[in-house]
Amino acid sequence: MITSRDVARLAGVSQPTVSRALRDDPKVSEATKRRVREAAEALGYAPSAIGRALSVGRSTRVGLVVTDLDNQFYAHVIAPLHEELERLGHELVLITESSDSGPVAERVLAHGLCGVVLATTTVDSILPARLRDRGVPFVYFNRTAPSVAADSVTVDPERGVRELLADVLRRGHRRIGAVFGPRNTSTGEQREQVVRAVLDEHGIGLAHRDVLHGPFDFRTGHDGLRALLGREDPPTLVLCGNDVVALGALNAARELGAAVPGDVSIAGFDDLPTSAWALVRLSTVAYDLDGMSREAARLLVGRVERPDADPVHAVYPTRYVARDTVGEPRG
Amino acid sequence: MITSRDVARLAGVSQPTVSRALRDDPKVSEATKRRVREAAEALGYAPSAIGRALSVGRSTRVGLVVTDLDNQFYAHVIAPLHEELERLGHELVLITESSDSGPVAERVLAHGLCGVVLATTTVDSILPARLRDRGVPFVYFNRTAPSVAADSVTVDPERGVRELLADVLRRGHRRIGAVFGPRNTSTGEQREQVVRAVLDEHGIGLAHRDVLHGPFDFRTGHDGLRALLGREDPPTLVLCGNDVVALGALNAARELGAAVPGDVSIAGFDDLPTSAWALVRLSTVAYDLDGMSREAARLLVGRVERPDADPVHAVYPTRYVARDTVGEPRG
Repeated sequence: MITSRDVARLAGVSQPTVSRALRDDPKVSEATKRRVREAAEALGYAPSAIGRALSVGRSTRVGLVVTDLDNQFYAHVIAPLHEELERLGHELVLITESSDSGPVAERVLAHGLCGVVLATTTVDSILPARLRDRGVPFVYFNRTAPSVAADSVTVDPERGVRELLADVLRRGHRRIGAVFGPRNTSTGEQREQVVRAVLDEHGIGLAHRDVLHGPFDFRTGHDGLRALLGREDPPTLVLCGNDVVALGALNAARELGAAVPGDVSIAGFDDLPTSAWALVRLSTVAYDLDGMSREAARLLVGRVERPDADPVHAVYPTRYVARDTVGEPRG
Repeated sequence: MITSRDVARLAGVSQPTVSRALRDDPKVSEATKRRVREAAEALGYAPSAIGRALSVGRSTRVGLVVTDLDNQFYAHVIAPLHEELERLGHELVLITESSDSGPVAERVLAHGLCGVVLATTTVDSILPARLRDRGVPFVYFNRTAPSVAADSVTVDPERGVRELLADVLRRGHRRIGAVFGPRNTSTGEQREQVVRAVLDEHGIGLAHRDVLHGPFDFRTGHDGLRALLGREDPPTLVLCGNDVVALGALNAARELGAAVPGDVSIAGFDDLPTSAWALVRLSTVAYDLDGMSREAARLLVGRVERPDADPVHAVYPTRYVARDTVGEPRG
């Protein structure tokens, strides 16, 4: 491998001069710059991230740990996260937790990443503790684990869910069903708790048999809605753990010939761009996912620079977006 | 920075033994492995990608150059590409061409990537020539540039478009409109050529005013359909450059209260998962996008290992998937 030392030797200058010349430092004369550039070209030398990483002792690569890259939720996280990291001079490396190629903490270390954004944390994840023990900076994105303190960017569902349920109750729904997210995620757990607490204030309970749980994916909503509508006396409205789940539910309703909201109302959480499509018009709970993703990038880069600062917890508020999938109950 | 040399010194073994022990090489005794692991742990040493890259002279990071990460087409490329690269012991780094942080070729070199998958090539891109001149291996994905030879994974639209147009003509459409992709992409150009050639065989031309062009995105289809349906005598069917464009068109039709296919038929190209939704049921041209993405990963890794082998061109066939958005013309 060609190094700046080789270039320095060929150009007859010191090694630091090579770096300065290639950075176009005004303190280096034009003649020297030309000589260094010619030597670098002759040797096929390019200053690499590897070289920079070794010289400053760390890399500029940030990992994003996700489970399911096909899930459209992540597309809307990756784009702004990548853009903000690039603005900060960092690169984004994708890491999937579902893969079989070894424990994530080891791979993060092996890849020489400067830090990690965790978007898949479950309440019983061992990854946060392993990253902490190995001194790898990380930021919780959307989901957190109670056991290990770290910077976090999360959503407060309270206001949006409250507004959604006010609309639902005002329209007269009393038999409410739900396809909630996984119980072992802070997002799934927190949204379910808020829903139950608000309904409780109105003296309405969720019947045990009207409540399902599953991963935050299309199939969960699709199969969940089919199960709920297959009952003899189905709920008149189904709350979904997030928009991807709600999209699965809406498609299942269409397959069954059930009109939305005529036969069943459906609500989501996230307000993804697809939810605003004329073909979809999902009533849902919105927050600034783009801004959250950018904030996660900034928090992580800041954390790498100041590893001992107190953890920062950015919490994003929510609001209800009423579209066409929540209407009056039948009858 | 702790190196394997430090671990070797503390464990009282040679440096190559450290690597072998940490790789769990059967030729190293269990006692030695334990000693090396304890020394590594005591020093906080982890074999890094940087170290591996220096020891073998190159990195295991592959860049994917895209424009628009929000575009759902890319989500279905990134997931399998990432998975296949990971299986091959490589990592995926995202690079967007639209960003302002310097020319892509320089960033690829600066990031120390071992190679690049190009998914945004236009026929006049300078990136392929710059990568070739700098000796960076790359694979054309989906789109190619004629000026620089390299491995490629592309789609042959012929059969799928032929089957689609046979269905369209059998149903009686004669006034056909189109919202094609950009003329400066091989995919846009090639699909348009095949459409024109096949219609020509049937003595049908595309009226100049019924043909629009634009980027392969939602807005192109959305605004394109509104423009075409705003005419006094609109086409009875609109061919779209790809599925994301067709999804924009379908949503615009819904906004306008135009029934699909009652008032206007719409066809796409790609068969993304969304196109099969019950809410969408897009008639489109399908091919193995997942397989293509995996093949791009394998070709690139192979190219890095055998830089002088002849270029490989993998071409994927297409077929028509008739769903609900192509029907009989009005009247």
